[in-house]
Amino acid sequence: MSEEITKIGVIGSGSWATAMIKMLTDNHQEKQINWWVRKQEDIDYIQAYHHNPSYLSAVEIKLANNRLFNDAKEVIQQSDIIILNTPAAYLEDALAEVTAADMQGKIIVSAIKGIIPSIKKIVGEFLIDDYGVAVEDVVVIGGPCHAEEVSLEKLSYLTFAAKNTANAAIVAQYFQSHYIKTVISSDAVGVEYGAVLKNIYALACGICHGLGYGDNFQAVLISNAIREMEYFVDAIDYQDREINNSGYLGDLLVTAYSQFSRNRTFGTMIGKGYSVKSAQLEMNMVAEGYFASDCIQDIINRHQLKMPICNTVYDILYKNKSAVLAVKELADNLS
Amino acid sequence: MSEEITKIGVIGSGSWATAMIKMLTDNHQEKQINWWVRKQEDIDYIQAYHHNPSYLSAVEIKLANNRLFNDAKEVIQQSDIIILNTPAAYLEDALAEVTAADMQGKIIVSAIKGIIPSIKKIVGEFLIDDYGVAVEDVVVIGGPCHAEEVSLEKLSYLTFAAKNTANAAIVAQYFQSHYIKTVISSDAVGVEYGAVLKNIYALACGICHGLGYGDNFQAVLISNAIREMEYFVDAIDYQDREINNSGYLGDLLVTAYSQFSRNRTFGTMIGKGYSVKSAQLEMNMVAEGYFASDCIQDIINRHQLKMPICNTVYDILYKNKSAVLAVKELADNLS
Repeated sequence: MSEEITKIGVIGSGSWATAMIKMLTDNHQEKQINWWVRKQEDIDYIQAYHHNPSYLSAVEIKLANNRLFNDAKEVIQQSDIIILNTPAAYLEDALAEVTAADMQGKIIVSAIKGIIPSIKKIVGEFLIDDYGVAVEDVVVIGGPCHAEEVSLEKLSYLTFAAKNTANAAIVAQYFQSHYIKTVISSDAVGVEYGAVLKNIYALACGICHGLGYGDNFQAVLISNAIREMEYFVDAIDYQDREINNSGYLGDLLVTAYSQFSRNRTFGTMIGKGYSVKSAQLEMNMVAEGYFASDCIQDIINRHQLKMPICNTVYDILYKNKSAVLAVKELADNLS
Repeated sequence: MSEEITKIGVIGSGSWATAMIKMLTDNHQEKQINWWVRKQEDIDYIQAYHHNPSYLSAVEIKLANNRLFNDAKEVIQQSDIIILNTPAAYLEDALAEVTAADMQGKIIVSAIKGIIPSIKKIVGEFLIDDYGVAVEDVVVIGGPCHAEEVSLEKLSYLTFAAKNTANAAIVAQYFQSHYIKTVISSDAVGVEYGAVLKNIYALACGICHGLGYGDNFQAVLISNAIREMEYFVDAIDYQDREINNSGYLGDLLVTAYSQFSRNRTFGTMIGKGYSVKSAQLEMNMVAEGYFASDCIQDIINRHQLKMPICNTVYDILYKNKSAVLAVKELADNLS
């Protein structure tokens, strides 16, 4: 990084990215923020009215007008810390013009909680494999954190995970504020896979809710889900982690119990009998858990893991298995 | 137990006891059920209309009229398996006429999730110490299970815990049905303390909710609470337990996330600024977590344990500490 003032680039302009702009500008550390917003019309709107027209519109955007860009490459070239915050499925597009050289020597942060569908990789792996980013330079931001509550300045905790925890701490210092506390972790891989899996589990909760199962069942489902998550991340990258830390269990809880979670809502529609296609059309937004299910199933098969909840979601979404039947069978295997 | 048909006595007639009468009568095992209902007028009503007038009134009571008793001693003398299901604070009264000899050689089941305030003991300890019940004959029934969802026949899981798991399994077989699945555990002490602690944590969730904290914070609070619970039960009775099993984590979740939980509701009133006394008057029912807080604090002090969430609840309820301040300090210690 340069000796001068730190420059932070944010790539993406959905609700979670907009919440991050708010967090970064409410934080007192001196810094420069560069924001990539895909659509020029949104940039024009933000420059005129200082609100994002499409997401978290109540949030005042306190960025200077010249810090908004519609060229992602420019933002990345101009910044020392890059925060990736698009839906996973759109990341490759967003970075189309960006080269490995542009990323070199920078801290690359993933705030994306999903798997890139075309290559079935989590973002950390994608950065390391496809952009030659050093393992130590990858930082993952985990929840539990609804963007909506950030906009209301409700006290929230973010987990910053990196193999090199010093880098996690560098990024974290730009997020702390009167409503944001930060937790540092050395488990970038576990936090990222946990965030991916929790979307599948939230989808499962939605399916069961849609089928008419109640809160008693949901509590059992989630207590099985966190054990399944621990088993998975231990199998993929064994280390002595505390799965009940807020970056794993907390993130699962806030998503699985949220009425606002896209994944849970998508699942509820499936449980109520919508087909995958009609649920997607109806929602008109991306449920990360849908893509994650397919990619995680691939890993499950390769490593021959025993993941009954993920299997159930996969069978319903991709194998056209009856949700009624699949959940009935799953219920026999929960404890 | 006698060689004849098993006789099961249920002591108590609140919602959870009424739900158990339903579960036991919907189960297909042959058995005789004897039910102690404290008030004669309630017995008269049930005999006339086959519904409990005060709790879960929608549930049809499928017991023969001569199986209802207003004498607890008689029920206990006539039964092989005794299920205790009163509020913890009323148990001693309910058993006032009952002697150690009446309990001898029977399986005594606690479905009570609380501490007996006058002696600061969990029910299992009380039975062993004060009634000479053999450790192996104590069975504890744990959640996660709202009585309300049992009345709707929503699929639910119950945990049956006993040092002698064969006894747990004997009791469990009388509860299984198309909507009840059972889990067997050897950790009676851990399941019982877990059930007590979860009421304190649900109270904490309520306090924070009442103060205006949101879902992001609640997820962090619960992920800290389950770690605190594990630390406590390990300190009291160390064994290799999986704290994320549904009998511990599941039970915590269903209570902490429930709008119907008395403990959460009581906490919410405290968080909104009610005094303990006015909250109790307003609610007109027992929040087990209130008594549990005092008793658990005693154990914390004796064992010099580090339990920031329990301490916070205790300070607010019993030391008149400002909830605003106490939770602010707690928040600095969560991760």
